[in-house]
Amino acid sequence: MRALIIDCHGHYTTVPAEMEAYRKQQIEEVSNARPLHMGTVPITDDQIRESLEGAQLKLQRERGADMTFFSPRASAMAHHLTSAEGNVYWAAHWNDLIYRVCQLYPDNFAPVGMLPQFPGVEPKESIKELERCVNELGFIGINLNPDPSGGMWTDPPLFDKWWFPIYEALQDLDLPAMIHVSQTCNPNFHFTGAHYINADTTSIMQFIQSGLFEQFPRLKFLIPHGGGAVPYHWGRYRGLAQDNGWGLLQDRLLKNMYLDTCVYHQPGIDLLFKVIPHENILFASEMVGAVRGIDPETGHYFDDTKRYIDGSKKLSAAERAKIFEGNARRVFPRFPASL
Amino acid sequence: MRALIIDCHGHYTTVPAEMEAYRKQQIEEVSNARPLHMGTVPITDDQIRESLEGAQLKLQRERGADMTFFSPRASAMAHHLTSAEGNVYWAAHWNDLIYRVCQLYPDNFAPVGMLPQFPGVEPKESIKELERCVNELGFIGINLNPDPSGGMWTDPPLFDKWWFPIYEALQDLDLPAMIHVSQTCNPNFHFTGAHYINADTTSIMQFIQSGLFEQFPRLKFLIPHGGGAVPYHWGRYRGLAQDNGWGLLQDRLLKNMYLDTCVYHQPGIDLLFKVIPHENILFASEMVGAVRGIDPETGHYFDDTKRYIDGSKKLSAAERAKIFEGNARRVFPRFPASL
Repeated sequence: MRALIIDCHGHYTTVPAEMEAYRKQQIEEVSNARPLHMGTVPITDDQIRESLEGAQLKLQRERGADMTFFSPRASAMAHHLTSAEGNVYWAAHWNDLIYRVCQLYPDNFAPVGMLPQFPGVEPKESIKELERCVNELGFIGINLNPDPSGGMWTDPPLFDKWWFPIYEALQDLDLPAMIHVSQTCNPNFHFTGAHYINADTTSIMQFIQSGLFEQFPRLKFLIPHGGGAVPYHWGRYRGLAQDNGWGLLQDRLLKNMYLDTCVYHQPGIDLLFKVIPHENILFASEMVGAVRGIDPETGHYFDDTKRYIDGSKKLSAAERAKIFEGNARRVFPRFPASL
Repeated sequence: MRALIIDCHGHYTTVPAEMEAYRKQQIEEVSNARPLHMGTVPITDDQIRESLEGAQLKLQRERGADMTFFSPRASAMAHHLTSAEGNVYWAAHWNDLIYRVCQLYPDNFAPVGMLPQFPGVEPKESIKELERCVNELGFIGINLNPDPSGGMWTDPPLFDKWWFPIYEALQDLDLPAMIHVSQTCNPNFHFTGAHYINADTTSIMQFIQSGLFEQFPRLKFLIPHGGGAVPYHWGRYRGLAQDNGWGLLQDRLLKNMYLDTCVYHQPGIDLLFKVIPHENILFASEMVGAVRGIDPETGHYFDDTKRYIDGSKKLSAAERAKIFEGNARRVFPRFPASL
């Protein structure tokens, strides 16, 4: 086992246009009430290589990361579009594509999947694809959308028994889930600027108020974007838990919940490290993702989050190693120890 | 003009039970399709005194604050309940009660109102009550609910022309608005743990993506709870603005938007002061509010936010004076200079 820098949150945002063309066709078929079919998405290995070499792979090398846990483009999941059947095909194509990426670059990417969710459809309907991802394709994690309605929030909260069958499957598979929303159809919520961050905050508060993890003690949930608003308001959440008799957050929350480091400035990362135990933090950048420019205040890419971790003065070498690698290996036990 | 410590965000959370009884009757009348009427809420001056002396007034004294900008209990606004007509009566009763509080304690409380919003009803219908609050009752600010649907987010975003008449009225009156949601009827959103914080984040992103303040350059919006997730993700928001050609946030946002200090731990307050200019921060505690207990890590009340400002090592005396008083006087020009 060599020492790795593991980025636990990367999406295939640079996917060839054939995927979008397929989705457009699906949307058109559904809107015209035509029958759907699995069909094919003609993307060659060379197209995959081309889409990654100048982007994620280049940035991995430049920034000094080794391995990215790689999942479908988050905004492309769009579980509110097409139909339950349409999303079964869509998720299958995406997961097959992620599998191919990881076969082509086994030293750079490890596969994380998406589920064929659809608003109003019970999450248990996604178990078949979940099991295919793990048992047939060797996936090490899965993205679970807490709001498949795309910003309308019409499905039950994550503590409702609606979700329990998928939690049981996750526990059986010893698989962590990243709780990640997608595109929004509610004009109140900008997708990367409001919906993503709100969903993180919302999910964590659902865990706190429900004590979900007492019912599912082997669940492991990774909350992206540094946990939304929660670390900044850590006193508020500790206080709400105390006022309501929900105990300490280290017991109620932090045995099962992990936060990534997709926080795009040094003061935010410093706060994260200050209030959340290092055992619960996994390095991630989400590149190529929500923010792609260079911060004029630093001269470096906003999403080059490795710099903030390197720049955090109070971390010891052992703590840094946990955040870069150890925690990821612990949370994602299906990631091969041989890598 | 004496030096004051001004808490710009306090709610009448300890209101006598007669208000809730009135609201329950309204809800019952609407559900039984009976005609509504303004009616009365029999609360005596002594009841008002009793509700405040052992709570807000006691805590003001103990913590060393002088003046609270005082508005109706946020969760009680519940604009999604009853009907458009019901909320006209409800807002009028609440504003009358706030007026009485401030008449009884003119040195301790300055009045901030609520509007008779209702989902699907144009905000311009609230202008009459807004003008009554300011011109007849001497109110110095108003709370504007960006989601009168209570967590369903069915009304248009704050940059939609739907809201423009109320913005014009605010500008004409030179009145700041605090953007504050209320109770939620969506089980996904815990009200003080998710909906409040999400609404702050959502509103700020709406301002950034729309450039609303270019159209309404004299608007002044106070965003509570330290701006939701935004300071923690300040790099993300600066980056999103840059990527989209929306310029710098100091131009697009910070000429019109102010954040309060309702962040209930020292690391959060330290982050706020680090990334947001001091000119844009107003002292507030929201007591008696969302979190009422004592932080076992400090031995002090979570919401005794004055301690965090006093404890912030990097603030100069001049900066502290701005945050405690100067900025509040600038943002709330109707607050009497004689106080």
